[in-house]
Amino acid sequence: MVTRHTYDQELADLRQALLNMGKAVDQAIDEAVISLAQQDNELAHKVMDYDDEIDQMEIDIEDKCMVLIARQQPLARDLRIIGTGLKITTDLERMGDHAYDIAKIALAMNKQPLIKPLVDIPRMAQMSQKMLKDSLEAYTTLDITLAEQVCLNDDEVDNIYYQVFRELLTYMMEDPTTISQATQLIFVARYLERIADHATNIAEWTVYLVTGQRRRKK
Amino acid sequence: MVTRHTYDQELADLRQALLNMGKAVDQAIDEAVISLAQQDNELAHKVMDYDDEIDQMEIDIEDKCMVLIARQQPLARDLRIIGTGLKITTDLERMGDHAYDIAKIALAMNKQPLIKPLVDIPRMAQMSQKMLKDSLEAYTTLDITLAEQVCLNDDEVDNIYYQVFRELLTYMMEDPTTISQATQLIFVARYLERIADHATNIAEWTVYLVTGQRRRKK
Repeated sequence: MVTRHTYDQELADLRQALLNMGKAVDQAIDEAVISLAQQDNELAHKVMDYDDEIDQMEIDIEDKCMVLIARQQPLARDLRIIGTGLKITTDLERMGDHAYDIAKIALAMNKQPLIKPLVDIPRMAQMSQKMLKDSLEAYTTLDITLAEQVCLNDDEVDNIYYQVFRELLTYMMEDPTTISQATQLIFVARYLERIADHATNIAEWTVYLVTGQRRRKK
Repeated sequence: MVTRHTYDQELADLRQALLNMGKAVDQAIDEAVISLAQQDNELAHKVMDYDDEIDQMEIDIEDKCMVLIARQQPLARDLRIIGTGLKITTDLERMGDHAYDIAKIALAMNKQPLIKPLVDIPRMAQMSQKMLKDSLEAYTTLDITLAEQVCLNDDEVDNIYYQVFRELLTYMMEDPTTISQATQLIFVARYLERIADHATNIAEWTVYLVTGQRRRKK
């Protein structure tokens, strides 16, 4: 029989594994956007190679959750910790995929001169990364107020996304030579907007973990 | 104490709920692409409104999984049925979101004449929908061969996506008045390509359910 003490330790390990995965994803987003802005192909390759490790972290967390369920019949909040762990790791893995997608676009642009200095895209990245950190902080400390704040911040990222989208469309219309790159940059903006959505999901899972109440996800 | 018979019935109910959600998502994709191709705004609104019901199906399935874990300490394949249920419902919900996204684009195009008759996009939709149906069939009947076939089909959808992407870029470059619509259509193609990825995930979860072996997801 597993003692409560051991069990609590295993739940703490699960939480730590999610935090570690969050840090790895945060770094991947950071480096992906740097590889794009600075046209650093070596860094882009590094981000793409690292995606396998992020995927493995998801598998390890899922296995950990399954073992926890099998070893102890979890109830109430314990069960919600494990259930949300299984869900949050999916959100983190998708964020990692988007970092990979951005790095792939950095490579595809093949060091062509940027049609404009990147301002809004790094700003979207910073906002999304802050939402990721805050959502994991809220999850770890069961801070509903912080979780609610993350959900509010998502609207701001959405607004910048639509603004970037319209601006890049205008670029393309005014100068068709920018079409290929502008289309790629629209995708980058979309991926960052999705990263913010996934951080919002983590915040929503935190609300569920604490209250048992479900809300719609993104 | 829950009897094995009742428990088997509950697992069958879970499977049925996933199939029902799959059918709802399949219909949403179908109608979203029709609303786009036929510029049917009423149908687009219907798809968008229906997304709340798909989201509710996900919540109900997650609750069902949590209750099953709490009521009976599941082991081995039973545990994998519940664990994969929690994951597959996320994939289905994301497919539903993409149907919503496509319907939203149909509305945004605001009945502007299509820059070209849609051929590849409906074809991508049909292929992705077939992958969705096959993946759920494989999941229900534990048919690994069918699951592997779904994974193979994904490469074909990817290839059409890149072809559509390049074709639409060419349209934009040759005629800048097509830029706005072509950009939207590139997103539609991307959403369909992602729907195929999620079907592939369901197929991968089926392989895990049967064999206990994990593989990388999309």
